[in-house]
Amino acid sequence: MLAMKPNILILGAGYGGMVTAAKITKELGPNEANITLVSKHDYHYQTTWLHEPAAGTLDSDRTRMPVSQLIGGKKIDFVLGEVEQVHPEENKVSLSNGEQLDYDYVVVAVGAIPETFGVEGVFEHSFNQWTVNGARELKEHTEYMFAKYNNEPKDEYLTFVVAGAGFTGIEYLGELSVRVPELCKKYDVPLNKVKIYCVEAAPTALPGFDPELVEYAMNLLENRGVEFKIGTPISEVTENGVTLKGGEEINAETVIWATGVRGNPIIEKSGFENMRARVKVEKDLRAPGYENVFIIGDCSLIINEETERPYPPTAQIAMQQGETVVKNIKALIKGGELQEFKPDIKGTVASLGGKEAIGVVGDKKLFGTSAHFMKKMIDNRALWILGGAGLVLKKGKNPF
Amino acid sequence: MLAMKPNILILGAGYGGMVTAAKITKELGPNEANITLVSKHDYHYQTTWLHEPAAGTLDSDRTRMPVSQLIGGKKIDFVLGEVEQVHPEENKVSLSNGEQLDYDYVVVAVGAIPETFGVEGVFEHSFNQWTVNGARELKEHTEYMFAKYNNEPKDEYLTFVVAGAGFTGIEYLGELSVRVPELCKKYDVPLNKVKIYCVEAAPTALPGFDPELVEYAMNLLENRGVEFKIGTPISEVTENGVTLKGGEEINAETVIWATGVRGNPIIEKSGFENMRARVKVEKDLRAPGYENVFIIGDCSLIINEETERPYPPTAQIAMQQGETVVKNIKALIKGGELQEFKPDIKGTVASLGGKEAIGVVGDKKLFGTSAHFMKKMIDNRALWILGGAGLVLKKGKNPF
Repeated sequence: MLAMKPNILILGAGYGGMVTAAKITKELGPNEANITLVSKHDYHYQTTWLHEPAAGTLDSDRTRMPVSQLIGGKKIDFVLGEVEQVHPEENKVSLSNGEQLDYDYVVVAVGAIPETFGVEGVFEHSFNQWTVNGARELKEHTEYMFAKYNNEPKDEYLTFVVAGAGFTGIEYLGELSVRVPELCKKYDVPLNKVKIYCVEAAPTALPGFDPELVEYAMNLLENRGVEFKIGTPISEVTENGVTLKGGEEINAETVIWATGVRGNPIIEKSGFENMRARVKVEKDLRAPGYENVFIIGDCSLIINEETERPYPPTAQIAMQQGETVVKNIKALIKGGELQEFKPDIKGTVASLGGKEAIGVVGDKKLFGTSAHFMKKMIDNRALWILGGAGLVLKKGKNPF
Repeated sequence: MLAMKPNILILGAGYGGMVTAAKITKELGPNEANITLVSKHDYHYQTTWLHEPAAGTLDSDRTRMPVSQLIGGKKIDFVLGEVEQVHPEENKVSLSNGEQLDYDYVVVAVGAIPETFGVEGVFEHSFNQWTVNGARELKEHTEYMFAKYNNEPKDEYLTFVVAGAGFTGIEYLGELSVRVPELCKKYDVPLNKVKIYCVEAAPTALPGFDPELVEYAMNLLENRGVEFKIGTPISEVTENGVTLKGGEEINAETVIWATGVRGNPIIEKSGFENMRARVKVEKDLRAPGYENVFIIGDCSLIINEETERPYPPTAQIAMQQGETVVKNIKALIKGGELQEFKPDIKGTVASLGGKEAIGVVGDKKLFGTSAHFMKKMIDNRALWILGGAGLVLKKGKNPF
């Protein structure tokens, strides 16, 4: 009998992979499937919170939790390893250590990497990794710059350039602009020596957001000292800072790249048809042409039928996809109809640091503390889905 | 009458200058002298504690206190400025901002700078400033190296070279070796990836200390992972690390220069006869040839008549000199005999991190926790002299 049990591989311990892992054991018992989770870290982390530890307003350990704790008690094997490639014709996954794993069903939830849009120097000279390791590096680098300044008062130590006024850029600016006065106090640095620029190629900050909310956010950040350069493409990131289109240079020791993401190159390497490493999946979330390959999260591309444009990759969608994938794998193994995935966008809230935020929930625009409250609730909800009330108590955020 | 009051200038808010300032108002009333303290920082700091914030085992703010608080209520003017030169023939002091201050009596207590012994690259490529700003920079740099490692696992990020196994080097190693396991935990770095070298040109660590105590200290630090290279001169500090005599290179992103100090270049610039910017002062602590110039602390050179060698510059001696200077200025103004300065060496204790230390108090050798206890008491005693019980309560160290 054992030999007949299908192998289910879940690749990635981000939002999509972890929800799949957390829910699948409720649908399939240990006699019905072997379930293996593969991740390059032995912890899951809340990607959408990373702007906080990156700026130093939250301890990075608050954003992560051991995988063992999340899948503890569940019949899931865990493999600590880096996925190199999916071989969909052979039903195999190869890891960077040379190991190979067989699967009957695979859930590809390997996340995203930064999108450079062809700008040179991003990977060499900017902080671009929105990971626990990346956030810690940016946080420590920032403190180091303040600590250096009184020994060698160079303006570029206190100049910060955030590339991108999208969701990540704005949320990070919210935290940084709250943190800077604290750092000035800690390191005896006059506040007026610190320069924070936000450079955005598009004609507006927070594209897709309601203009009234965008204005609220920009006003608030400008009042905290952020200087926006909207409609201004960056032509190169150098070791001295950034060069803007037209030739202007901003000298800065700290350039933060937050212009958005593309899918994981594993997708391209594995031969799936893709756009910027995102796969336009079938309605049941399977990769076109494969019966047993599901792709979810940042590597999947879902079209919003109302606007005929792709949904932006969000934690919200990845988690909902995880729930659909569990149902569909169950249907494939135990019989039944496969479900179509339909995103249920409950709202979008961007934090702005301190007790400030903006957002839309349903048809309602939210500002300030009420948006801040919603944001904390959304953050806690993600924990609830992953680990129930226990995890909310342990890692959750106080909305008050 | 007012025009007759002598101007007393105290240059420097280190141990010597602050004790002079703290004691002089007890001997001379506001009708007897104008007293002005000049310092480039508006705070005093405990130089002998700086190995702790430099390693991150103590908050740097614990090592400093506002000058205004220490001289609060006393009739002392404070000038925030950097002394550029003393003009002893003109009874003037010039500051770097162009200002000039007249004096009738001056106490030169401007401290020390690192001694490079002619090794190239020290100021460019090492952490060498044992100041609050310098300690903060080293601490933040260290954390930054750990934070970087998981993003880019280069050995040199986790390699630390301490140049000098004297008092400062050993005390810093004590703290660093305690801090490293904490940093490894915080940043998910395996402990065995961290390398700490201590390179010393002299044939022994802690020259002048009892050999049994030296062995105790070295064993303890070796057990915590420090590798000693004794009798090994450094020929150059480079941007990649250090080059040892003989050509061996150690690649390290962090080189800490702790080979001892020389007097402040202000001494040389001012034309006082000196050896490495230290002035062999008269027994009453005046500069040879000048009736009204006292030089104390790291810029003074006092010969130990028993050994016929100079006393090492210590906080203990600087503070005692401050007390003698106060008596001698009083004698010059109000009449009386000038006193000869005689150091009263109460003991020397080197901390080794955690609850470990070594030392000599009187004829007694101390190890481990008893030495640790003495060290904390010595640290607190310095606070007591400067600011009484209140300061001990505020900034003092719990010896238990």
